[in-house]
Amino acid sequence: MKWIKKFWNFIIKSLGYLLLSVILVGLLTWFVWRPIKLASYSPVKADRLPQKQAYLESIRPQSTQSPNIILINFDDLGYGDLSCYGNQLIRTPVMDSLAAHGIRMTDFYSCSPVCTPSRAGLLTGRHPERSYAGDHVYFPEDHVVSSFRKLLSLKNEIPQDEIMLSEILKSAGYRTAIIGKWHLGDRSGHLPNDFGFDTYFGVRYSNDMLPLHLYRNQEILEEDHTELVSGSKSYTDPDMPLKRQGTDQTQLTIRYTEEAIQFIQHNQEQPFFLYLPHSFPHVPHFSSPRQAGQSEAGLYGDVIEDLDWSVGQIMAELHRMQLDSNTLVFITSDNGGDLQGSVGHFRGRKQLTFEGGQRVPMIIYAPSLIPAPVTTKEMASNLDILPTVLDLLDLKLPEDRIIDGKSLLPLIQGQQAGPHSFLFYTSAQTGEFKGVRNRRFKYLEDAPGNAIPLLGPLGIISSMKPQLSELTRDNESHNLIKKYADEAEELKEVLEESRKAIEQNRRGWRE
Amino acid sequence: MKWIKKFWNFIIKSLGYLLLSVILVGLLTWFVWRPIKLASYSPVKADRLPQKQAYLESIRPQSTQSPNIILINFDDLGYGDLSCYGNQLIRTPVMDSLAAHGIRMTDFYSCSPVCTPSRAGLLTGRHPERSYAGDHVYFPEDHVVSSFRKLLSLKNEIPQDEIMLSEILKSAGYRTAIIGKWHLGDRSGHLPNDFGFDTYFGVRYSNDMLPLHLYRNQEILEEDHTELVSGSKSYTDPDMPLKRQGTDQTQLTIRYTEEAIQFIQHNQEQPFFLYLPHSFPHVPHFSSPRQAGQSEAGLYGDVIEDLDWSVGQIMAELHRMQLDSNTLVFITSDNGGDLQGSVGHFRGRKQLTFEGGQRVPMIIYAPSLIPAPVTTKEMASNLDILPTVLDLLDLKLPEDRIIDGKSLLPLIQGQQAGPHSFLFYTSAQTGEFKGVRNRRFKYLEDAPGNAIPLLGPLGIISSMKPQLSELTRDNESHNLIKKYADEAEELKEVLEESRKAIEQNRRGWRE
Repeated sequence: MKWIKKFWNFIIKSLGYLLLSVILVGLLTWFVWRPIKLASYSPVKADRLPQKQAYLESIRPQSTQSPNIILINFDDLGYGDLSCYGNQLIRTPVMDSLAAHGIRMTDFYSCSPVCTPSRAGLLTGRHPERSYAGDHVYFPEDHVVSSFRKLLSLKNEIPQDEIMLSEILKSAGYRTAIIGKWHLGDRSGHLPNDFGFDTYFGVRYSNDMLPLHLYRNQEILEEDHTELVSGSKSYTDPDMPLKRQGTDQTQLTIRYTEEAIQFIQHNQEQPFFLYLPHSFPHVPHFSSPRQAGQSEAGLYGDVIEDLDWSVGQIMAELHRMQLDSNTLVFITSDNGGDLQGSVGHFRGRKQLTFEGGQRVPMIIYAPSLIPAPVTTKEMASNLDILPTVLDLLDLKLPEDRIIDGKSLLPLIQGQQAGPHSFLFYTSAQTGEFKGVRNRRFKYLEDAPGNAIPLLGPLGIISSMKPQLSELTRDNESHNLIKKYADEAEELKEVLEESRKAIEQNRRGWRE
Repeated sequence: MKWIKKFWNFIIKSLGYLLLSVILVGLLTWFVWRPIKLASYSPVKADRLPQKQAYLESIRPQSTQSPNIILINFDDLGYGDLSCYGNQLIRTPVMDSLAAHGIRMTDFYSCSPVCTPSRAGLLTGRHPERSYAGDHVYFPEDHVVSSFRKLLSLKNEIPQDEIMLSEILKSAGYRTAIIGKWHLGDRSGHLPNDFGFDTYFGVRYSNDMLPLHLYRNQEILEEDHTELVSGSKSYTDPDMPLKRQGTDQTQLTIRYTEEAIQFIQHNQEQPFFLYLPHSFPHVPHFSSPRQAGQSEAGLYGDVIEDLDWSVGQIMAELHRMQLDSNTLVFITSDNGGDLQGSVGHFRGRKQLTFEGGQRVPMIIYAPSLIPAPVTTKEMASNLDILPTVLDLLDLKLPEDRIIDGKSLLPLIQGQQAGPHSFLFYTSAQTGEFKGVRNRRFKYLEDAPGNAIPLLGPLGIISSMKPQLSELTRDNESHNLIKKYADEAEELKEVLEESRKAIEQNRRGWRE
C-alpha cells in the first residue's frame, strides 16, 4: 500500500505548508501592518467644534429653582425584569411605586440592542451612527478587540464635536455628574469630563471587560487586578476561576449609590443633572453581600433587587432634601435582557432586532409635572430624553445638526399622543436601521424565515426574509407581509428612506 | 519584491495541495467507503419478535361497542398557535369548543422537540431512544442525509419488534388507519401497514423533503415531481422557485380530511382507531385555496385555520354518524412551534429543550368519559396516549418491555392528580435526556450561561451550564440553581439515573 503512504504524506505536507503560510501572514499582519495601522489611527475628525462651542455659549443659564434631572440607565435590564413589568419572582417595590405614581411606558425602546450605541444615542439625542458609535461596542484601548476594530477602521470613541446632554446642562448652570459606566471611549479628550460632566465616578467599560479600574474623573481611584486563570479578558461569570483578585463587584451598586447621594447632598442649592448608568445587571452578576440569596430569582434577582434598593436610597435622599417635587427622574435600560434576564413575553434578546432586544422599561417620575399616573402605550425611545429635558427648560436644540429624538414633555404633561409615527430597530453590528414600526405594525428586514434544516444556523441566515408583525396582538410569531402588503411596503419605504438619509449625511450636519 | 512573489506562490501552492487532498479524501469516502458501508447497512435487529407476536395474540378482541379513538397530531404546531391557547390573530373556533367542553392541558409535552422521535414515542409509549429513533429525524432512503446517517451508524427506521398502538388496537378488533405523515422509516417491513395500520393514505416524510409522493398503503398513488431550481431537496418555502411542479400541497389538508371522513363512514359498525398526523403547519406552508388570505395571521394563520376546519369536518361526521359520544379524541402536536409559529410566552422553539421546544397543546374530547370540562395543569406527555387507551379498553400493557408512558384515564375521568412526578426533556440530536421537571422546577443540563461575547454562538455553547427554573412563575429567564441547590440536586439525580437506566437497557427489555 505504498500509494496510501504517499498520499498520506502528501496531505500532511499540504497541511504543513498551509499552517506555515497562515502563521507567516499572521505574523506579518500583527507585527508589520497592525503597528502601522494603529500608529496612523486617529479619532474621527471634529468638524463642528466651533458650532458646538457657539451653541453651548448661547445657552441661557437657568435659575437656581430649575428642576433637577436624574437619569438612571441600567445595563441589560430586560423588559420583564421589574415586578411592575410583570416579573413574578423579582420584587422591585421602589420602582413599582414610582411607576404607579408616575408614567410607566409599555412601548419604550433603546435606540440599539447593545451598549455603546445605545448610550451614544441617549446622551446625544441622535442615532448612534451619527457619532460613529453604531458598530457594536467600544473596547479598552489595550484590548485585542480594540486593535481589531481599528484594523477594520471602526472608531473607538465619540467625536469631540458631538453635543451631549451633560454639556448643555452644564452650560445652563447645572452641576453634572456621571456615576457608573461610561463606555463611550477611553482616549484623552473623549472622557466623561470632556463631555460636560463635572464629576465622574465609575468604570469606563462593561463589568465583563478586564481590567475594570475604578475612576474618579481622569484618575484611577482603584486599580483592578482581576485576572482569570484562563487568561481571557472576558469575565462573564462570578464562578470563573481567578488567578488574581481585583475590583470588588459586590460593592459596585452600593458605591455608585453612596456617590449619588453625596452628589445630591452637595448640590441642593443649585440644579443638578445626575446620570447614573449602573454596571448591572450586565454579566458577571454580583449582588451586594446584604442582598445575597434574598430574592426569589436567584443571583440575577438579587442583583435587580439591589438596584431597586439603590433607587430607593436616592429617592429617600431627594425626599430628605425636599427635592422630590422639583426633580424629574427617568429610569430605563440600555438594551433588552441578556441570556439571564427576562424579556417578558417578547421574542429575542439583547443584540437582536426582535422586540426583546430593544424594548425596555421606562419609568418617569415627576410629581410636579405629571397630572395623573398613567401607563402609556405611546412609542418613544431613549433618543427622546435630551429633547425632552431641553423642552422642559425651554432651551433651544442645536441648529447645526439633526437631533433625531423628540420631546416627550407634552406626553409627560398629560397629552394623549406621543410624538412618533415611526421608531427604528438597528443592527447591533453596524448601527444600520434594520426595521421600523408604527403603532400597529413592525417591518423587519431580515427576520429568520423558514430555515433550511441541513445548514443549521447558516440555514437560518440563508433564509432571512422580511417580516411584518402585528405588535399589538402578536409577539412576532407570525409574518403578515403578504396579508398587509401595502402596510409593509409603506414601512419598507420609510425604512429605506431613513437609511438613505443617514447614508447621505451620516453626521447629520445642517448647513 | 521577489520574496513577496515567492511567498504568494507558496501560499497558493499550499492551498492547491490541500484542496486536492480534500477532493481525494472526499472521492475515496464517497465511492469506496460509502457503498461498502451502505451495502452492509441493516435495520436494527428485531430480538423480540416472538414476544411481540405472543403479546398481540393475547389481546382480547373488543366488543363492537368499544369506543373509537381519534388521534390528531399536528406537525410543528406551537403552544400558542390556537386561540384557546392564547393566540390573538388565529381563530380556531372548533378546537376552542372541544377544549371548552373537554380537557385543555396546559402542561402537556411532546417527548422530543423534533418530528421522528416524537412520533416513535407517541405510537410506542416508549422513549424514542428505545426504538433507535432518538437521533433527530429520518430521511428518505435516497436522500443524501440518509446516507450520512448510515455512515454515522444511525438507524433510519423503527425496529420491527416495537409494538405500536395501532397493532394492539388491530389485534383488539379495531379498524385502524393512518392518514397523513408517517416519518418512521421507508424500508419494506417498516411501513405503516407493517405496524398494524389497515389503511394508509399520506406521505412518508415531512412536506419539506422531496420527493413528496402520496401513498395509498405501499403503493405510490401520485408521484411527486417537484424540483427546485436550486436543486435542493429541502422545499421550505412556497416562494422557492420551482423547476418542475409536483404534489399540490394546497390540497393536502383537504384530502387528509376527506379520507378521514370516508374511513369513519366505512367503520361505523365496528370500533376504529384513526391516527391523523397532519403534514401542517410544518414548512413549507400551503393553505387550501378556500382559506387563502382569510386569517388575520397571514399564510401561517390560514394553514392553522384550515386545520381547524378539518377538525370541524371530522367532528361533524362523528355527529352525523352518532358516534361522538362513543369516541375519544386527542388533539396535540409533535413538537413546539418552528420559526413561524407561536410558542406562546415560552422561551425557545422546535429543536430546543426550553419549554417552547416541547410544550404543546393537548385537547381531549370525550363527552362520555369526562365528568366536567376542565383546564388542567397536571403534567403529561404524548408517551401517555398508548397506556391511556389500553387502560380505557382494559387491555394489559406488554410485559416484556418497559412502557415509559402512564395512563391518563383517571385524570380524564375527573381525578385531580396526574400520574407523573417527573417529565423529561430530550436532545433533538441524540435523544438523550437533557432536562427534567417536577411540578414546580425544571432542571436543564445545558442552558446557555453567560456567553463569552467574542466567540459569538461558540461563546454561548462554551458557556453552557445547568439551569434551574421555576416554571410556575417564570419563563426560564432566571437561573435558581444556587437558590434551590437541594431541589436542583434532586432533579439532577433523577435525570442522571434515568439516563443511566436507559443506557444500561436501551431497548427497555424486561426478562
